Amino acid sequence: MRHGIVTLLSDFGTADAYVAAMRGVMLGVNRALRLVDITHEVVPQDVFGGALVLRHAAPFFPRGTVHLAVVDPGVGGPRAPIVIETALGWFVGPNNGILTLAAPAPRRAYRLENPAFRRPVLSDTFHGRDLFAPAAAYLACGAPAAAMGPALDEAQVVQLDLPAVRREAGALRGEVIHVDHFGNLITNVFGDYVAEPRPAECCVEVGGARICGVRRGYYEVTAGELCAVVGSAGLLEVAVRDGSATARLGLGRGAEVRVTPGRGGDA
Amino acid sequence: MRHGIVTLLSDFGTADAYVAAMRGVMLGVNRALRLVDITHEVVPQDVFGGALVLRHAAPFFPRGTVHLAVVDPGVGGPRAPIVIETALGWFVGPNNGILTLAAPAPRRAYRLENPAFRRPVLSDTFHGRDLFAPAAAYLACGAPAAAMGPALDEAQVVQLDLPAVRREAGALRGEVIHVDHFGNLITNVFGDYVAEPRPAECCVEVGGARICGVRRGYYEVTAGELCAVVGSAGLLEVAVRDGSATARLGLGRGAEVRVTPGRGGDA
Amino acid sequence: MRHGIVTLLSDFGTADAYVAAMRGVMLGVNRALRLVDITHEVVPQDVFGGALVLRHAAPFFPRGTVHLAVVDPGVGGPRAPIVIETALGWFVGPNNGILTLAAPAPRRAYRLENPAFRRPVLSDTFHGRDLFAPAAAYLACGAPAAAMGPALDEAQVVQLDLPAVRREAGALRGEVIHVDHFGNLITNVFGDYVAEPRPAECCVEVGGARICGVRRGYYEVTAGELCAVVGSAGLLEVAVRDGSATARLGLGRGAEVRVTPGRGGDA
Repeated sequence: MRHGIVTLLSDFGTADAYVAAMRGVMLGVNRALRLVDITHEVVPQDVFGGALVLRHAAPFFPRGTVHLAVVDPGVGGPRAPIVIETALGWFVGPNNGILTLAAPAPRRAYRLENPAFRRPVLSDTFHGRDLFAPAAAYLACGAPAAAMGPALDEAQVVQLDLPAVRREAGALRGEVIHVDHFGNLITNVFGDYVAEPRPAECCVEVGGARICGVRRGYYEVTAGELCAVVGSAGLLEVAVRDGSATARLGLGRGAEVRVTPGRGGDA
Repeated sequence: MRHGIVTLLSDFGTADAYVAAMRGVMLGVNRALRLVDITHEVVPQDVFGGALVLRHAAPFFPRGTVHLAVVDPGVGGPRAPIVIETALGWFVGPNNGILTLAAPAPRRAYRLENPAFRRPVLSDTFHGRDLFAPAAAYLACGAPAAAMGPALDEAQVVQLDLPAVRREAGALRGEVIHVDHFGNLITNVFGDYVAEPRPAECCVEVGGARICGVRRGYYEVTAGELCAVVGSAGLLEVAVRDGSATARLGLGRGAEVRVTPGRGGDA
Repeated sequence: MRHGIVTLLSDFGTADAYVAAMRGVMLGVNRALRLVDITHEVVPQDVFGGALVLRHAAPFFPRGTVHLAVVDPGVGGPRAPIVIETALGWFVGPNNGILTLAAPAPRRAYRLENPAFRRPVLSDTFHGRDLFAPAAAYLACGAPAAAMGPALDEAQVVQLDLPAVRREAGALRGEVIHVDHFGNLITNVFGDYVAEPRPAECCVEVGGARICGVRRGYYEVTAGELCAVVGSAGLLEVAVRDGSATARLGLGRGAEVRVTPGRGGDA
């Protein structure tokens, strides 16, 4: 047996029986599995949002972890159920992009077609329970991914990507890709872009606000102050210390962000 | 020791110390127990709602699991704390019906009266922590249910049931018994009722909408379209693909549902 | 190895990758650790609120448990990361008071400065993942607290306390310190204050309501009735049976409560 850790991510919420049913099915495969929630609060059907949370959680788990991610608006339809095998571990879910922000290259993908690794009767509305959970459980117990079904060409794996940052007229143009629990606005601008020249040397424009200088952490500003930092996922974010940037600026996912060279004093 | 899995269900929410206190007490009985949440988001005091989630989760756990369910508006009062022993496992909670949609017959019930299986001091406001959690933990460690206290006649066990479906004038008349996280309207009409003759041959009327044909899955309709499916619990449900049926129709628990023979083209 | 239980408490919510990243880091230290959530729904930056939940949960866990609590508005700044060693177990978090309502005296505190017990690169925005989680994991595996860094004088440990109850003109004057999931108003008045003379002999005044007699439990009143009880944490609380006292009275944290001798009939 491998180390037997399975993470769970879904848009099922935690009020219904859905997540518990998946847990029960996995413990039925092997009672020693270690089931660890990532989140079940992905906005219903928000594949990109789920993929992003998985991207920011999966790398912190031990190698060999099985990551089960079910945001599956096309359940029962033609999208294939797959597993992606990587150096980091296995990623199990529908082939709709949910796995691909997190699963690092090189990778091999397989369709989950082998009936030995699913429940005997398959519903058309809950593959999380009937198909993905047992496959993840068997993988975590050592079943080889290649035994799950035929290989899928890399080109057949639906790939999501972070929206591209564009360079124009000396500025970087990015966008808000996530609003976190604290109301921080997480962007698609990697910290590297603003790390050199020194962060103090650039300004971040978002929703009419202009923030000059990138802080090391929230502690560098006072309560209620707007600031830019490179957050814990390595992405530029806009925050209000002890407050909410999304509430302050009235902005959310998709809002445009511009990073320009310069200093506050130049403005 | 049995396999040591205990599931937890309550209306305690997860913001307070209540659930954690129950977990701590159980780990104090045996640190190797495996504690698995079903949900803690049952609407406060909604015994039927909690019983329904338990019904839809418990069958997916391995036999021998202990299911601890605490929705207990009468805590401290005359309702008895009980365990129900079944072929599926043990069900621990107050004798107010919370356990009975899930606990299959045949079953034997016992009052939890033996002070050896509770905390030394019993509060009158939190039997989940002081009485039910330790009883569940000891059961999961192999203590016999009959050691917990005197047997209870089956007739003394408060029984909840799904509301009955009625047949009248060639139609089935049922109701919405649960609204799930996605806004799907789950009814008390078993899938068998609409499976033969072929699902296409019946119509579902709910809140002014008439949906003809029962789909195999949400994937058969387009985004935003209303549909009827037999959901993963085997019950007829009304859904909007990539949307919310409860929001679309303005309906919730208790709403009437009629299933009539016929086809869309007949309407 | 110690028994390896680590509890987690934070204000991170459960929608983002933050909590999962902490879990992953800890399982990377030792895959056999048992991670148990207390809550992640502390109001953002509410150190007192988090400390209170920890106070009401920690005593129910087995001795030797490691309690990891991250409500850390000053992350990255001068507040020290610490561990407090007590007879109950270890408390790991920032030195801002979050640990001190729960950590019983006598206690010894240490700064978490040893780089052997943190991730190799430390962010300035997420010490929960990079510093506190690995320290907690190593402690749960048997690393001595004294190995984590230099000792801290007790006087240097930021201490939170429950607000004091005042006695004036024959009455006790306290306040609401927490509103729980049920809408119960939990006060800072210990049950001892109202236990003798017999509870029936005092009245509780809060927000214009006067409740005479302290009940043993909610079951003593009828649905919808306002009552006072000594709750499961040993504190006087005001509740509405099968309802919400916070909604009924329009009161929340900080609301004044007066306890006076006397009986209902005297009013």
